[in-house]
Order: sequence, then C-alpha cells, then structure tokens
Amino acid sequence: MYMIYADNAATTKLDIEVFEAMKPYLLDQYANASQPYSYARTAKKALKEAREIIALSIGAKPEEIYFTSGGTESDNWAIKGTMLSPGERKEVITSEIEHHAVLNSVESIKNLGFSVRYLSVDSFGIVQPETLRQTISSQSKLVSVMLSNNEVGTIEPIAELTEIAHSQGAFFHTDAVQSIGHIPVDVKALGIDMLSASAHKFNGPKGVGFLYVREGVRILPFIDGGAQEYGKRAGTENVASIVGMAAALERSCSNIEYNASYLNRLETLLLSILTEAKIDYLRNGAALCVPGNISLSFKGARDEMLLHRLDLMGICISTGSACDSKNTQISHVLRAMNIPEGYAPGTIRVSLGKDNTEEDVRKIGNALIKTLRSIQQ
Amino acid sequence: MYMIYADNAATTKLDIEVFEAMKPYLLDQYANASQPYSYARTAKKALKEAREIIALSIGAKPEEIYFTSGGTESDNWAIKGTMLSPGERKEVITSEIEHHAVLNSVESIKNLGFSVRYLSVDSFGIVQPETLRQTISSQSKLVSVMLSNNEVGTIEPIAELTEIAHSQGAFFHTDAVQSIGHIPVDVKALGIDMLSASAHKFNGPKGVGFLYVREGVRILPFIDGGAQEYGKRAGTENVASIVGMAAALERSCSNIEYNASYLNRLETLLLSILTEAKIDYLRNGAALCVPGNISLSFKGARDEMLLHRLDLMGICISTGSACDSKNTQISHVLRAMNIPEGYAPGTIRVSLGKDNTEEDVRKIGNALIKTLRSIQQ
Repeated sequence: MYMIYADNAATTKLDIEVFEAMKPYLLDQYANASQPYSYARTAKKALKEAREIIALSIGAKPEEIYFTSGGTESDNWAIKGTMLSPGERKEVITSEIEHHAVLNSVESIKNLGFSVRYLSVDSFGIVQPETLRQTISSQSKLVSVMLSNNEVGTIEPIAELTEIAHSQGAFFHTDAVQSIGHIPVDVKALGIDMLSASAHKFNGPKGVGFLYVREGVRILPFIDGGAQEYGKRAGTENVASIVGMAAALERSCSNIEYNASYLNRLETLLLSILTEAKIDYLRNGAALCVPGNISLSFKGARDEMLLHRLDLMGICISTGSACDSKNTQISHVLRAMNIPEGYAPGTIRVSLGKDNTEEDVRKIGNALIKTLRSIQQ
Repeated sequence: MYMIYADNAATTKLDIEVFEAMKPYLLDQYANASQPYSYARTAKKALKEAREIIALSIGAKPEEIYFTSGGTESDNWAIKGTMLSPGERKEVITSEIEHHAVLNSVESIKNLGFSVRYLSVDSFGIVQPETLRQTISSQSKLVSVMLSNNEVGTIEPIAELTEIAHSQGAFFHTDAVQSIGHIPVDVKALGIDMLSASAHKFNGPKGVGFLYVREGVRILPFIDGGAQEYGKRAGTENVASIVGMAAALERSCSNIEYNASYLNRLETLLLSILTEAKIDYLRNGAALCVPGNISLSFKGARDEMLLHRLDLMGICISTGSACDSKNTQISHVLRAMNIPEGYAPGTIRVSLGKDNTEEDVRKIGNALIKTLRSIQQ
C-alpha cells in the first residue's frame, strides 16, 4: 500500500540494522541474564555493552543507566521514586505542557500527601526561568520539565531551570523522550539529576526505555522484586530489546547532525509550499525545536477533518499527541500556549523522520493545500 | 556449542513460530496502535486479537486483560494498585514462599501505613487453607498467594484460599507466572480477582506480560500517563511482543496435556536414574506440581558446586530462583519448607521444557551421579 508516514513523534520505524542486532538475542541467546552459568554470559555481556553505549551517548556513567519498559515507566519512576523517598519536602513542580506520563504521575500522588505546582509557558511553549524562580520554595523536592515538547517541538532551557532547582535544594528530572537521538544531550552539561528516554522514538523497539539517575540521587525502586538493575528495577532483563535500544541510539547519535540539517531542509520546504499557496497558517513552537516536528495551525480548519482527509490520501499525521488521540478538544499544550482561537482547533502535527523524502514533503504540502483551499476560500 | 538447557523455570527459548508471528509487527506494521489513521488499524486489530486469545486461554473476558512489561510489573500493580485504592482496610496477606516481586512489593508499602501478614507453608510448600483462615480478619484487603511456586513447583489450593478470602471481604491475587501455559488455568473456576503472567516463561518474548483483573475490582493504575489499556496502564503498546505473547500462549495451551505427560515421563526417568545409582537425595515440593520443575536436595552437597560442575559439562540448571542468584544462602522457600539441614544446602532446580529430550535427561542424570559420587561415598 502507498503510504507516507509523517508521524515520527508518535513512533518510528524500527531500523532493519537494529532488528538484525536484536535477532540473536531473540533466537539463540535466550538465557536469563541473571543466571551464573556460562551460557548466560553472552546475554550478560550484551547488557553491559548496551549500558555503556547508552551512557556514553548522554555523557553518563554506565551505572547511572537503568533499563525500563519505556518512557512512561521512566517518568513514573522518576517522579514517584523521588517524591516517596524519605524526606521532609512534599512539593513537586512541573510545567503545564508535560506529557501525560508526567502530569498523571504528579496528580496520582496528591492523595498521598504531596502537592503539585504548575509552571505556565509563554506563547512559544517555553518555560521561562523566571517563572520557576517565582514558584520554587524550600518545600520543593523535585522539578520535572521536559527537554522538548512532544506536540510542538519546543526545546526548554533545562540547564538554567536545573540551576534554579538546585539552588533551592530540589532535584531536577527531564522527560527527554522526544529529544534523545534527535538533539545532542549531555546530562552533565545540563546538570540534571534524572532523564527519561524511550527506544521507539529513535528507531528502536517499542516496550523498552531507560532512566538516567545521577549517582547520589536518592530514589526508591518503583518496580520491586529481584535484584536486577543494581537492585533498583526488578524483572527479567529484556535483553533483545535493550540491545536494540543501544544499537538504535548509537546509529541516531552518530547521524544526529546530518539528520538535523536534512530534516530542517524538509521543514523549510513544507512551509514554503504552504506559504507560496497563500495558505493561512501558524507554525507553533519556538525557533529552537526538535528537527522534523512541525506543529501547524490552520485558520478555520478542524484537526480531525485534516487528519482524515490526509489519511484518505495515504498520509499519516497526528492531531496532537498520540496518547491523547481519543481527546477531541484542544490539547493542554496548545491551551497553555494560547494559540489564537481561530487557529487552535485546526492544529496538526507533521513529524518527519530521516526516512522521509522531499517527494513525501511535496505530497504532504499538496494534500494540505487541496484540503484547505475549500475551507479557507 | 554443545549445551543442555534445563533451566526453563528461569526463562524459555522463544519458539521460532512465535518469532515469525512477531516479525511483521517489528518490521512493517510499526504504527502507534493508539493513532486513528488507517495504517494503525492492523496494529490495533492485532492487539485486539491478542487480548481475545489470552482471555480465552484463562476463561476471562478480553476487557479483563491488561498488558504489562512482565510478571514483576503485574505483581507490583496487583498489590500496590489494590492496597492504595480508597478504602478502610490496611492489611495484606501473602505466603512465605512468594516470588520477590510479591514479597518486596508488600514490604515496600509498609511505610505508607499498610501492614503485612505472612502465611507459613507445610513441608511440601503448601499453604494450608486453615492457616489463612486463622490469619485473615476484617482488616484484610488483599490475599496474594502464588498459583505454583517457582523453586519447587508446588501447586497451591487457590480455589479454597480464594473462598476464604472472599468470605472475609478481601480480594485475591495469584502470581501465576510459573503456571500459565504449563497447567490449565480457569480464572472463574479459581474464583480469583487478579492473576499475573509473563510471556517468557511459556516460550514467548521477554519484557511482556499481563494482569488479569476481574470486572468490578477496584484497582488504581500503577503506570500513569496516556489512555492505553482502558486508561489503566499507560505507555505506547508493545505490539510485536504482545502478539508474540498471545501466539506463545495459544501454542502452549493447545499442547498443555501432551507437554505435561511428556515432561512427567522425563521427570520419572531422571529420578529413576538417580535412585538406581543409589544417590541420596530428596525431591522437594508437593505431588501436585508444575510439570518439569524438579527441585532436588542432595545430602552433603553444595548447590553452587553442583551448578558449576554441571556448567562445565554444558548443562544449565539453577540453584534457586534466577532472581535470587546472587544470594548464596538457603532460599526463603526451602527455609519455609524446613528442608532437612543435611540436604538443604545441596539443593538444585532442574526445570525441563518441551524441547528437552530423554537423551538430555540421561546426560543430566549421569552428570549428577559423577559429581555426587565423589561426595556421597
């Protein structure tokens, strides 16, 4: 079937080279990596190497990387594991534009005696450091702000935010699910304490991710049980998927500059096609954003209608975040950014990936023009 | 390399047919199953079918099956999700021989104001219904007893235990990680409220499992975020692994009687080889046990020494549960069962699977005889 996949922020295609890297661990090296006999050594070594590759890619130490079942688990762990660890402070601060994995995690601990404060954003979706400065107090235990937003791509000023959090003695976590593999990330340069990532967002397999936890950060285990992952995350190690995640991240990081400039060229092409056709649109988000993530609001249009028309033409795009696809209202992110009323309901996200071509982009542009001409004239 | 794998209770080999069932969802059908466009339909349909297959195999409804990252997550969710849900009762009851996924989960909520009571077992590893009857009270919210034990294979009298729990208004959860796919399980016949399972224990992939939650049971989400899994378990669906889990379970269940009688024959063969050679051993566990799981205690021997000698002969067996492999003391299960002192330190678990042959068993028997003769004479 003919198809243009332009929903890479929802999930990405597994690279064939990554599949090949996983295969031996699916088929032959199936040992439980925690067992002491010789046959388990290959699996154990593969885990060790994967941990080293991942650590290296974000400037961390291998023992600061904990494998999880994905970004959502990592976010849950970072927030609940930090807030529930012993201590006097009972407040968590996050932004209004976080993923629901963060928003629903902070809400879930309210009935355990914790309080939540939300940071507003400006019209570009940026959490201004001043906003955090005015909100944080000596009661704040954790600040969680995403590295880049999943709906509009805006990259947040994490290093500055972290400094403010630390100056008040709070920990800092960043949800980097939409960033890792797409923009260079160095945990030491950012100064952060915790970082969440998910493999299927950078051409790795679904169902696997990691949490970076800086040495010295006190965090309780979230999934209790066996002694895996230094006693902090129990469960038989998902060796094949972890190997796949490392292979995918290594590939993404080694092509990160090339992919970024390629995707920026495709972005410019799409916008110029729309502008040339005199389509009335806004591009949402900050100038500093994740390559390929294009949030567009069209005057007088409806997001669902656009999605379905494009779907009929074989083009996959998104109305908001995938996790929110049952919600037909204007998303919490667009609301927080105050997207003008005449545009907000007609917002779509085109998220391009390294496998998209100029031809794809021209077809997306033309499909949008065709659909919008009937509305905007 | 020549190898006999006899550690099937730790993990199993992924069936090649299961790998083939997963492949299309790893390579071509990579859509985020929560998206509304046509391309996501195949993934969505695959999830629906997997849920139906799994539900059917345990006598549940599809909407009572929630996909997780494995047995450990399922156990954590069942315990924490039930105990933390609103209500007056603050006590959880479990047995002394549970997996650490259960034991460490109940311990982890003690500091949130919950109390734990432990049920002892008899010398066969059976939780006697009378023990529960004497322990349970109107303060008990949840009883969690495993369907079969991972170290000795003993099958517990779950239907009776559930009846006692329900008579006191408590919920009943069973960790069926070592049972599903190996013995027939019908959740309605057992009367249970929740059941945990893990795919890699029945020749499916690692990193995926499920939790059965009976309709009407109040349980909080454990992993918060997007609206996946009826709003109860967030995170992008791991389609390929879920499809693999369903395929593996369907295969296991359709061969369950054949495999059981085949494995029973292999068990008898191993025991008769040891008996004939006048080896001084005990077989641990109850007569009613999971096929293929053979816990043996040898007089005067040491478990680690046996494991390493067999490893040198290319045979993979276990000293206890895999998750406990760093622990060189006598396991909590053997202690609870009061295995005689002269035998307990020399306990190994040979866990046979459907791919093992009579030839394998003869070689395991002879390797044990060779190793033990030097000790026991």
